[in-house]
Amino acid sequence: LKNEKNNKPTIGKSGEFGFIEKIRSAMKTKNPSVVLGIGDDAAIFKPTLGHELIFTTDMLVEDRHFDFKWITPWQLGAKTMAVNVSDCAAMGAKPTVALVSLGVPKNFPVPDLEAFYDGLKQWGESYGAQIVGGDTVGSDKFVVNVALVGEVEKGKALKRSGAQAGDALFVTGNLGDSAAGLHALQHPSAKGKEAAPLLIKKHLTPVPRFTVGRALSTQKMATSAIDISDGLSSEIHHLCEESGVGAEIHEEALPFSEALIHYCDENQLDPLPFVLHGGEDYELLFTVPLAKISEVIQKLPGETGVAVKSIGRMVPKSKGITLITRKGQRIPLEAKGYDHFTAKDKA
Amino acid sequence: LKNEKNNKPTIGKSGEFGFIEKIRSAMKTKNPSVVLGIGDDAAIFKPTLGHELIFTTDMLVEDRHFDFKWITPWQLGAKTMAVNVSDCAAMGAKPTVALVSLGVPKNFPVPDLEAFYDGLKQWGESYGAQIVGGDTVGSDKFVVNVALVGEVEKGKALKRSGAQAGDALFVTGNLGDSAAGLHALQHPSAKGKEAAPLLIKKHLTPVPRFTVGRALSTQKMATSAIDISDGLSSEIHHLCEESGVGAEIHEEALPFSEALIHYCDENQLDPLPFVLHGGEDYELLFTVPLAKISEVIQKLPGETGVAVKSIGRMVPKSKGITLITRKGQRIPLEAKGYDHFTAKDKA
Repeated sequence: LKNEKNNKPTIGKSGEFGFIEKIRSAMKTKNPSVVLGIGDDAAIFKPTLGHELIFTTDMLVEDRHFDFKWITPWQLGAKTMAVNVSDCAAMGAKPTVALVSLGVPKNFPVPDLEAFYDGLKQWGESYGAQIVGGDTVGSDKFVVNVALVGEVEKGKALKRSGAQAGDALFVTGNLGDSAAGLHALQHPSAKGKEAAPLLIKKHLTPVPRFTVGRALSTQKMATSAIDISDGLSSEIHHLCEESGVGAEIHEEALPFSEALIHYCDENQLDPLPFVLHGGEDYELLFTVPLAKISEVIQKLPGETGVAVKSIGRMVPKSKGITLITRKGQRIPLEAKGYDHFTAKDKA
Repeated sequence: LKNEKNNKPTIGKSGEFGFIEKIRSAMKTKNPSVVLGIGDDAAIFKPTLGHELIFTTDMLVEDRHFDFKWITPWQLGAKTMAVNVSDCAAMGAKPTVALVSLGVPKNFPVPDLEAFYDGLKQWGESYGAQIVGGDTVGSDKFVVNVALVGEVEKGKALKRSGAQAGDALFVTGNLGDSAAGLHALQHPSAKGKEAAPLLIKKHLTPVPRFTVGRALSTQKMATSAIDISDGLSSEIHHLCEESGVGAEIHEEALPFSEALIHYCDENQLDPLPFVLHGGEDYELLFTVPLAKISEVIQKLPGETGVAVKSIGRMVPKSKGITLITRKGQRIPLEAKGYDHFTAKDKA
């Protein structure tokens, strides 16, 4: 990216209003619920009768959440939208409208900014989210904030707070791939070249579990749900705290990808910390009452195209949050996810 | 602020999750339309029947939009909410729910962050906006983004696009005070000490014209509206472009405050550039059809407690956007508002 900058027009030269005009014509409204899109003091949209609205936001800061050495502007746009859609999926809702706020350095090339918006737009639209406005300001580092509104049938939203002792604990897909992908980006001389691209792809362009969230909410299969942005060990703590329960997780049930195992084998790494504490997988963690377990196992993967796996069960709060190792040892599972302030900077 | 930092706990020590917990208990939901507030993957709220929703966002970046030398954390919180409520007011809508995304430096003192949230919360609640969640991340500079949803009776939103040739052009309050307040902050040795505090107050804690926006929309008094964030000369261009009309503005009709005139006299400054191009007044600029002019003049100030003044009229697009000087000269009014990329940095 950096080498090309001199040849490209920059946002500093074309200016904010010129750029807004460009974006505006690229973002023409198609969504019938949008009454007024980009270009006024605010957008206007119509809620659907019988639905509640969900509202979520995520901010990504250059050199903290991403590094343009590794991620293309298009990928960053796609990922920013994906992490917001993931929150929406964790509520069982459908995304509808989004606002994009950007802090952009003066020397940022306009074609890169257009690619960034393309990524945002394409990923948004593939989940039904229309970009209806935003704010663009100057900044030393690239900062993006997406705010997303979604809809969910009244009373059917998935919350963190509904889990009961006795419920089974499920997770979608595989865990730890994204953190291993980050490891591969940070260690270009690492071995395991066959596995690295898969892991890196999971890190740079995560796919939100939208279809699973919708199936769980509309078919009332889950008592609670959360998306895994900060790592399984953190998210299970959030879920348990909100629900007032404990949990037992079986190490042998955790879903490891072949790519992760291969990469860790080749580099003599223990895959378990990636799976337990690695962030940014954007898989869904959810709880299922006993009566619904067979339905989830038999129907959900076919309906959604996403693998789901039971990794443990919910227990009374007094029993805490425990990992049962392959050898049958019970050890307390501490939250070791990413904290933006106490942790070292992430790239 | 800086001298005190060493004695205060910082966000870097208490961590993201500790801080979220603190904020959460301070932000307990009171608004009946909020189904689920802070603490889940997303907030949930209920739209009111017969209403459309408006959606707006603003991002403020340290050393671009504000400087902690001059603004307290509480004031910054209040101002961030005010600029979003101002967008909502320009649509004639009532704010309902807000999300706050923050990029915070590690050494930022927790008491200052609490004061910032207090400002946000108090100003939000005074206009009916409940903070229902957000995102808090690490950043070199302080960055805040507020996303705001509001409600407006179906079909009654004020847009930029409804002005017609022949409509009268109105503005609320006085213009230029905020830019003069910024001038006073940047020139501590300037004269006009009696006037400066009023001007600085307008710059640091602008009051959004919420009551005026609501009266205009519910009583259908305006054909279009926009808030003045980037300066009158910029905003009239936006309004005219969206409406497909031109405008004539009379210099002698522009509302100057006594504080601005005094400050400019004392410092041998021309007040006109402040009034025409100074940003961040957050007054409303709106157009009124002939049949409603007397109603606006006679009823609106009494109902809303806000002065309004007719400063010109809308004309066919072919006539352009003109300033008629005190001497009767007609000169084209160019947009000279603030552009974050082409302008010098603002403090």
